[in-house]
Amino acid sequence: MMIKTIVFIGAGNVATQLGLAFKEAGFEILQVYSRTGKSATLLSNKLNCFATTDIKKIVTHADLYIFSVKDSALSKILRDFEVDNAFAVHTSGSIGLEVFRGLKLRYGVFYPLQTLSKSVRADFEKIPVCVEAQDVKHLNLLMRMGKKITRNVTHVNSQQRAVMHVAAVFACNFTNHLYAIADDLMEKENLSFDLLFPLIEETLRKVKNHKPYEVQTGPAVRNDKEIMQKHLQQLASLPAYQKIYNFISKSIIETKKRNS
Amino acid sequence: MMIKTIVFIGAGNVATQLGLAFKEAGFEILQVYSRTGKSATLLSNKLNCFATTDIKKIVTHADLYIFSVKDSALSKILRDFEVDNAFAVHTSGSIGLEVFRGLKLRYGVFYPLQTLSKSVRADFEKIPVCVEAQDVKHLNLLMRMGKKITRNVTHVNSQQRAVMHVAAVFACNFTNHLYAIADDLMEKENLSFDLLFPLIEETLRKVKNHKPYEVQTGPAVRNDKEIMQKHLQQLASLPAYQKIYNFISKSIIETKKRNS
Repeated sequence: MMIKTIVFIGAGNVATQLGLAFKEAGFEILQVYSRTGKSATLLSNKLNCFATTDIKKIVTHADLYIFSVKDSALSKILRDFEVDNAFAVHTSGSIGLEVFRGLKLRYGVFYPLQTLSKSVRADFEKIPVCVEAQDVKHLNLLMRMGKKITRNVTHVNSQQRAVMHVAAVFACNFTNHLYAIADDLMEKENLSFDLLFPLIEETLRKVKNHKPYEVQTGPAVRNDKEIMQKHLQQLASLPAYQKIYNFISKSIIETKKRNS
Repeated sequence: MMIKTIVFIGAGNVATQLGLAFKEAGFEILQVYSRTGKSATLLSNKLNCFATTDIKKIVTHADLYIFSVKDSALSKILRDFEVDNAFAVHTSGSIGLEVFRGLKLRYGVFYPLQTLSKSVRADFEKIPVCVEAQDVKHLNLLMRMGKKITRNVTHVNSQQRAVMHVAAVFACNFTNHLYAIADDLMEKENLSFDLLFPLIEETLRKVKNHKPYEVQTGPAVRNDKEIMQKHLQQLASLPAYQKIYNFISKSIIETKKRNS
């Protein structure tokens, strides 16, 4: 068996980018289901397939059903889905395989580790896809399918995927928040955030070749109390930033103590 | 007047990379001073010039004296420096112009905003250099000099530079610490940190075209309590990371409240 035909349940950011990637790789997208007609139609037009807002009208002969809906909506929609013995995967980073247990389905997970949006076309070739399935046979099906759109397909179990999702929050969402703080500080002094790009890029370049812990720089890792005190004074009028400065500096100092 | 000849006081990471860049750009490096003979010799060999460990033996006819020493050592070494009316700059991000006041010197600041090391050759063309001086004449001298090694020379006053230095800590040192946490989480689950690179790169790509605040994603900015709760449970055995997860999530939520 090989997967050739796909139905998308959900028409959000992930469904849109996965749909486009699979279509381009030669898969046939049969149908898009979404609760709201507008998004179903929008995506089905892009994928040149049928749209429906009625879960009972989903075609029954697809090789794979990809559930790309909000985490909180997934179990309910899986219960409403009535195609017995269908091969179903979800695309969530934080939901385990057990969401499928007790349902009349064959099942797996197809999780692209990237922040996706409807309007910006994703370059899937560079996106790691994490797959998991009920058994080796279905895992191999997903592996082969993933390799049609990216070179980076990895078997990741539910526990690993959940922790990876937390790690992604640290490495992506939290760093973005730190960029937002830096941008705000620069703006208050009429300086462009762009000035920091070379420094940010260098930070990233370094962790590509070293463990981030080993290339930690800055006053905290040197335990340079004088500079840290100066920085805290600079932030005197911004207690929220002062708190975060203090807190992360302490975490860097403690991490160093733990590891030395 | 134009600057053609330079003496370096200090032989650390910044002196090394600035020295190499200025030499390549056609400046003549006359001498390197360092407290320790070994580093003075090491750098003077690279720059093909004289070395000294005796501050009284520094040549008196250089056009510019670049003080690249530890912040805590700068004022003492400036007091010991006896070349009257010399043009002196320091390269520190966190020390103001006032360190020169009351000394018989003409003065300014030449601050390269980058994390530099002795062994990795810096690509200065892409490094922002922030200059400041006692008057317009000396500022222009430093501007012109900076433009010989980078296209990115900006006039930044002491208050701006100090805040920029704090912003750099947020954008570079603190993000690196978050990478270190992510790496540690991944490693504990036998997953490679490399899997997160596309996500990290996408985060950076986005802030090049948008304000970081506007492209914030993740459970905290959506105030998705269910996922945040799940993540905190994932971190149950790692209270230090749990604390930082909680703290930055709250900061993201509060920032959104303040701005909306």
